[in-house]
Amino acid sequence: MTTHLPGPFSLVPFVSVDDMMKLVIDIGVEQMLSELADEIETDFRRWELFDKTPRVAAHSEQGVIELMPTSDGEAYGFKYVNGHPGNTHSGRQTVTAFGVLADVANGYPLLLSEMTLLTALRTAATSAMVAKHLMPKGAKTMAMIGNGAQSEFQSLAFKAVCGITRVQMYDIDAKATAKAVKNLNDSGLEVVACKTPEEAVQGAEIITTCTADKQYATILSDNMVGSGVHINAIGGDCPGKTELHRDILLRSDIFVEFPEQTRIEGEIQQLDPDHPVTEMWQVINGQAAGRTSDRQITLFDSVGFATEDFSALRYVREQLKTRPYFTNLDLLADPDDPRDLFGMVMRKQAKMAAE
Amino acid sequence: MTTHLPGPFSLVPFVSVDDMMKLVIDIGVEQMLSELADEIETDFRRWELFDKTPRVAAHSEQGVIELMPTSDGEAYGFKYVNGHPGNTHSGRQTVTAFGVLADVANGYPLLLSEMTLLTALRTAATSAMVAKHLMPKGAKTMAMIGNGAQSEFQSLAFKAVCGITRVQMYDIDAKATAKAVKNLNDSGLEVVACKTPEEAVQGAEIITTCTADKQYATILSDNMVGSGVHINAIGGDCPGKTELHRDILLRSDIFVEFPEQTRIEGEIQQLDPDHPVTEMWQVINGQAAGRTSDRQITLFDSVGFATEDFSALRYVREQLKTRPYFTNLDLLADPDDPRDLFGMVMRKQAKMAAE
Repeated sequence: MTTHLPGPFSLVPFVSVDDMMKLVIDIGVEQMLSELADEIETDFRRWELFDKTPRVAAHSEQGVIELMPTSDGEAYGFKYVNGHPGNTHSGRQTVTAFGVLADVANGYPLLLSEMTLLTALRTAATSAMVAKHLMPKGAKTMAMIGNGAQSEFQSLAFKAVCGITRVQMYDIDAKATAKAVKNLNDSGLEVVACKTPEEAVQGAEIITTCTADKQYATILSDNMVGSGVHINAIGGDCPGKTELHRDILLRSDIFVEFPEQTRIEGEIQQLDPDHPVTEMWQVINGQAAGRTSDRQITLFDSVGFATEDFSALRYVREQLKTRPYFTNLDLLADPDDPRDLFGMVMRKQAKMAAE
Repeated sequence: MTTHLPGPFSLVPFVSVDDMMKLVIDIGVEQMLSELADEIETDFRRWELFDKTPRVAAHSEQGVIELMPTSDGEAYGFKYVNGHPGNTHSGRQTVTAFGVLADVANGYPLLLSEMTLLTALRTAATSAMVAKHLMPKGAKTMAMIGNGAQSEFQSLAFKAVCGITRVQMYDIDAKATAKAVKNLNDSGLEVVACKTPEEAVQGAEIITTCTADKQYATILSDNMVGSGVHINAIGGDCPGKTELHRDILLRSDIFVEFPEQTRIEGEIQQLDPDHPVTEMWQVINGQAAGRTSDRQITLFDSVGFATEDFSALRYVREQLKTRPYFTNLDLLADPDDPRDLFGMVMRKQAKMAAE
């Protein structure tokens, strides 16, 4: 009878924030965004396989805490994520997250990972992957409205995946814009700080909105959006939080991840519950039309979906097979005899007494 | 501009299996079971405050993976737990779990803890706390049917909380019984290994059933259960899994945690959906009757509920204020500027390049 040492079944690889940064740096941000976009697209293609459920949200006055589970029948993943717009006042992130990938066959976790950074990456990768299917041909310029934590990742994902070369940045806080411009200084993108949202959208074929206020806001008004653009609306992602004027929605063809969730959380919470939308997985699979004319406004009403986190976690797990950016956590009890959990504690006690 | 070091907001206390064992040993198993029972009872008393939802389950042929969230408006907790009856064949636990406690005000996790051991403890503590309210006065003998990982914890919880002095153990696998008897050798309980379930229930005022088969089973048949006993039914805890013959249920007054969940997962899935049951929190608060006669059969149809995990996590967090059984995990990104997640990665890269 041996005393307890963490056995092979008790250890779960853990990717800390520091490890995730090392992984991103080692792979390269743009390379990782491209690979994530491919991984996410692959899972959109097999959309129907996934066990999908709207996220489980606990709302409070200050914000929301959500659990986002999904499974493809072989692996199971979930993300814990919060959204607290007031957090920046106390030096905290508006959104933090971590996630777990597990084996459906035995229920054991395979990976625990920080997902604050990973969510930023997968969100940008999803946006760019979708835009690749919907944007006007040869688009080179993106307006980036809202220059917070997501803006650099969006810019680089659209460079890597969609081939854009110029980003026109605007934020109500000029300091946020200055930060983003500085961060993208050596990216190879032409980055322009704009003083008004009108200036930012001028000549842009793609408009990305990503602002953080938890309220009905009008980041884009109707007259700012001309024909033929693709709008990538990221920030309207919970009940009571939208970014676009309703009239823009009415002029657009709207594409979504999971309609049941987007109706509650997305821009389309402003519209009738039966307003037609197209599911993005069907466009990717060729089962539904994407962009059909040069003059059409396409709108990706993105709220983020559990399969995207699943794809990202699976991607990270794959990377860890050849890269050492994890530690093993003694997370799961692994007694010699699975029925002898109590004996495991007793043997530990005997060992401690003997030391 | 400093480079990234895990800041105060990025670190989350983590209780490993090894730490949890040390905590249990330091406090003492029976003491901890008593204190957990008090904590769980306290939260049952303020039941109506909690944000309650049935667990979110992902079922597969091999088992189930569940997320069990709840909140009291100040703290938020959830548990990840699997149930895979075939796991013991590969040396794994049937049930493993971990959980998180978080601050509702900012969404930041306060604690990440193993919960395989902690679930075993809280399940036993809940059973004993409920039995304290329902068992016949002066009960001294418990039948313990199913001698797996939960059996020793149940026995000690009933000793510590209810004052039982004798446990009559039975399992279809005599080796399981031998293990439990050996583990409880120095516990101060009179422990008797029984060859049949009939022998185990003989003279017992409390009957605890805790078996693991994922099927409709009849651990207790109707003629084995006399009047005046309290039945603590633990093992019938998911759809398609029950332990008691239906006729026993019809002779019993049935007490449950959260009816919406118990109707799906408990013994009462065998009964009509409107069969009367009593919510345990109302008994504890004096709003509903518990045991009203010596001859009555009371049945606690326990499936485990999220508030019990919440109570257990909060208890552990309190203990960590004076006991060092945790490590800090770099789980949350904490950039100098919350909007500058990308810059955090860039500064890390610059630092690595300089080294």
